Amino acid sequence: MQVGFIGLGNMGSGMAANVLRNGHHVVVYNRSPGKADALIGQGAQAAGCIADACRGDAVITMLANDAAVDSVVFASGGVLDSLAPGGLHISCSTISVELSERMARAHAQAGQRFVAAPVFGRPDAAAAGKLFVVAAGAASALDSALPLFEAIGQRTFVVSETPQVANLVKLSGNFLIACVIESLGEAMALVGKAGVDRHQYLDLLTSTMFSAPIYRIYGGLIADGAFEPAGFAAPLGLKDIKLALAAAEELRVPLPLASLLRDRLLRLLAQGDEELDWSAISQLAAEDAGTAAG
Amino acid sequence: MQVGFIGLGNMGSGMAANVLRNGHHVVVYNRSPGKADALIGQGAQAAGCIADACRGDAVITMLANDAAVDSVVFASGGVLDSLAPGGLHISCSTISVELSERMARAHAQAGQRFVAAPVFGRPDAAAAGKLFVVAAGAASALDSALPLFEAIGQRTFVVSETPQVANLVKLSGNFLIACVIESLGEAMALVGKAGVDRHQYLDLLTSTMFSAPIYRIYGGLIADGAFEPAGFAAPLGLKDIKLALAAAEELRVPLPLASLLRDRLLRLLAQGDEELDWSAISQLAAEDAGTAAG
Amino acid sequence: MQVGFIGLGNMGSGMAANVLRNGHHVVVYNRSPGKADALIGQGAQAAGCIADACRGDAVITMLANDAAVDSVVFASGGVLDSLAPGGLHISCSTISVELSERMARAHAQAGQRFVAAPVFGRPDAAAAGKLFVVAAGAASALDSALPLFEAIGQRTFVVSETPQVANLVKLSGNFLIACVIESLGEAMALVGKAGVDRHQYLDLLTSTMFSAPIYRIYGGLIADGAFEPAGFAAPLGLKDIKLALAAAEELRVPLPLASLLRDRLLRLLAQGDEELDWSAISQLAAEDAGTAAG
Amino acid sequence: MQVGFIGLGNMGSGMAANVLRNGHHVVVYNRSPGKADALIGQGAQAAGCIADACRGDAVITMLANDAAVDSVVFASGGVLDSLAPGGLHISCSTISVELSERMARAHAQAGQRFVAAPVFGRPDAAAAGKLFVVAAGAASALDSALPLFEAIGQRTFVVSETPQVANLVKLSGNFLIACVIESLGEAMALVGKAGVDRHQYLDLLTSTMFSAPIYRIYGGLIADGAFEPAGFAAPLGLKDIKLALAAAEELRVPLPLASLLRDRLLRLLAQGDEELDWSAISQLAAEDAGTAAG
Repeated sequence: MQVGFIGLGNMGSGMAANVLRNGHHVVVYNRSPGKADALIGQGAQAAGCIADACRGDAVITMLANDAAVDSVVFASGGVLDSLAPGGLHISCSTISVELSERMARAHAQAGQRFVAAPVFGRPDAAAAGKLFVVAAGAASALDSALPLFEAIGQRTFVVSETPQVANLVKLSGNFLIACVIESLGEAMALVGKAGVDRHQYLDLLTSTMFSAPIYRIYGGLIADGAFEPAGFAAPLGLKDIKLALAAAEELRVPLPLASLLRDRLLRLLAQGDEELDWSAISQLAAEDAGTAAG
Repeated sequence: MQVGFIGLGNMGSGMAANVLRNGHHVVVYNRSPGKADALIGQGAQAAGCIADACRGDAVITMLANDAAVDSVVFASGGVLDSLAPGGLHISCSTISVELSERMARAHAQAGQRFVAAPVFGRPDAAAAGKLFVVAAGAASALDSALPLFEAIGQRTFVVSETPQVANLVKLSGNFLIACVIESLGEAMALVGKAGVDRHQYLDLLTSTMFSAPIYRIYGGLIADGAFEPAGFAAPLGLKDIKLALAAAEELRVPLPLASLLRDRLLRLLAQGDEELDWSAISQLAAEDAGTAAG
Repeated sequence: MQVGFIGLGNMGSGMAANVLRNGHHVVVYNRSPGKADALIGQGAQAAGCIADACRGDAVITMLANDAAVDSVVFASGGVLDSLAPGGLHISCSTISVELSERMARAHAQAGQRFVAAPVFGRPDAAAAGKLFVVAAGAASALDSALPLFEAIGQRTFVVSETPQVANLVKLSGNFLIACVIESLGEAMALVGKAGVDRHQYLDLLTSTMFSAPIYRIYGGLIADGAFEPAGFAAPLGLKDIKLALAAAEELRVPLPLASLLRDRLLRLLAQGDEELDWSAISQLAAEDAGTAAG
Repeated sequence: MQVGFIGLGNMGSGMAANVLRNGHHVVVYNRSPGKADALIGQGAQAAGCIADACRGDAVITMLANDAAVDSVVFASGGVLDSLAPGGLHISCSTISVELSERMARAHAQAGQRFVAAPVFGRPDAAAAGKLFVVAAGAASALDSALPLFEAIGQRTFVVSETPQVANLVKLSGNFLIACVIESLGEAMALVGKAGVDRHQYLDLLTSTMFSAPIYRIYGGLIADGAFEPAGFAAPLGLKDIKLALAAAEELRVPLPLASLLRDRLLRLLAQGDEELDWSAISQLAAEDAGTAAG
């Protein structure tokens, strides 16, 4: 396929490389042009502007947040302006349900096709082509996107015909991760104050009922008290919990755990800890217990 | 070893059978005597009273709650009265930290030895000798208990020299399970209201970051809306969350998630649903979202 | 003074009448023109457009929400376009801190003056000129506004030189009212389930430590279970709690009670009860207790 | 009347003095005998033992907590042993619903009469005979107690024929006070961070909708940051919230605000601040906002 790729950050560069590796022709675009060099070395073509990345069968966007996506898509000369009728936009960014819905509407009005396909996985999984893709959109659009999903991910989950539902599912996943962090933070504050070794405790949990990667990864960070450098910084965590709450509010679904997580993240940031990993909220439980960190 | 076994419920009968199977001589006691018959058929000896079960090297108690353990241990003619000096009591029940501490003190004063060894696992794991044992006590007492732990469990985690710490760890584990239930309940209420199929959603979660048995088991119950018959009834769930809160209060550790779980379980029981599995609290999130169950 | 008045709803019409009654010359504007008739009968002059209401010494806006204020102020031909240099805009609406800040900036850039002056009190207090005015802005602007505050209110509280701080104080007041509602709802669910008469209970409270109007008014509604017609409808309540949370988030102040109130209001609205007074959240506590309403 | 009075602490000594002042014959008893001296100087008679205080028409108990009441009533030679058939026990202490119920049962079995009559008001109100009495019990018993209620209080509220309901109402009142503290703490953290003067803010609140003593008293403490010496120490506050939660649990009434208050008080005490007034929980909201006290 002829594919444009916009957004070459930690995640996007790995994803674009895998699209390339799978035999597709890739035109890459990034605001800061240096980021494209490695990919160009691997055979990608450089786009001078967004429009140049929109001339193929599909364009993938993988950007940091709503503002970046909004600007790349809706600005003059953006994706919406540039894509041909019938052209396909695949949005992989973790963004609000509201923006995804707005893009779906705009693309439909312009006679273009739109698929939301946020991904689960960290930069190493992106580089290895081992992401999990959560996709939603019209069946025919999803069919067209399939070879690209196979290039970037190890498995694709189609969750709905309505694109923004994929974004909701992605946000709900991040919400569930934050719940794991908070629950481990409270449990470790408790047993830690009773003198139990946190690493041994974590080993017990992950050897038994909680043998999932998420408990191992975040449990390790919490037991170590190792929140820098951030894998996923607290302000991003707050952003995602807020997006989950906003989507839930739109649907009128109270999420008491998300409210609690929001308050925790806000408290962490009120202490000025912008640089910490979002799992640092686990320390607040220890703080409330009057015990220093981990 | 010569072992007494008191408490032949769903868990205890499987555990006692495995002790027997491992070549130990077992004297079994249960308040309702019929429960001992199968084990006697397998070679166990029947105890006419608690004292009869306390004449060997060790006595294991596996009872439903604090009241049962308190009575079996502290009543006249109970374990405390009957155990010889140096005798070993292994308490496997899920009970309060406070009662465990009280037993540790009383046994020490009587020149007896005490190990707390609550277990993780359901009746089928008990029957298969595949429990996880969380043990705490003096090193020499734990050494003596080891062959019995090997008989009932697939792995033993020694967490402290202070017996009641094992009970705290056990309660913290049940707290973590309840957190999984609540978080899945909220997430499914959210994506469910947006039209996502709950089973497909669960498959997505457990195929990716949440690939732990606990997500599979409870996620399945929640997606099915199948809360009867109860694997672990709501009143027992409330009891355990209350014991966790009581232990945390004694240590002065606030657990906001446990407070929320307590309120959820209380609300479920206020509706009169005593017979439901504790995972039925997941339906409250759906109820709050104005969507019916399952 | 020569005063424009924009927004003649339940609150605004009473306020404008009092400005008129105090001897000022008032030019009134409302989108739906019929609303101005009574005031014109009392001597007010009709404005054909927003600009007509902006030609005097000051213009007061009293509108329903952010969207209405935003449009009246920022639209082409709006207040910002129409006010002369040095002209004074007094914003009495209950709006977001963010919009108030944006207006302050825009007016300053246009060489105009801006005062935020939200009010406490219901329509009857507005009609009687008995509102409480919470004002913030530059001292000289506040001085100019003083005769108008005296016309509409029984007392003015100047809280800051920064206009939007008055909006924050107003939102915090509504937050405190909602806390009273929730706490009374829970307390009445508790004593009500024990058979205490709710009206007698309320009498006890308001005769002793809780002898404030807010306990009498809302306690009465809750004891009666009388939530229709709404004095302040649940969607407006949710809006204000959300504005308080948004302002608090901007300042990085976690407000766990506001989070709980948001979830309560969301749950009420998920049941479809758009028409109810916001004090109907008190029934959720009774619902959770398994007891029907009041 | 011939009245015994047991418990001469800050509250009890003022109450006993007013009973005396109203012309009754009073026999006083306190564990630490020095406390009785002033009352004996005013005409009271000293009791050498609990039984001596139980020989009149009624005995009033006003003690610090459940343990003290339990011991005074149920110990050998206690009130239950000493009161004649038909004798009246008036329990004014703030105690658990459960203990009150237990006393009601025991007195009934002994052919004695029992009234629960906890009071609202601080030591100065007790000294002035201006307490509010919340009374419950059989009508005839309440009639007998009436002259004593008139001696100690400015008004009596009869809430039920079931004694322990009065204790529930008292606990619910303390719960409502704690809600005021928490809500003011959060509101002041919010407006304080925006630069509003806390005393001026409190003046605004108490001059308008929140003109109740409880807002003035606790708002003043919070605005001043004056939590020592404690009027009502944090451990007592935690005790009362726990009693409210326990009573609510027995009735199966979830109280999310009480859960939050319990966590706040626990966190305060985990910091080691045993001596502070319970209103010091207000500082936790400021702490979470990253602003220091005061």
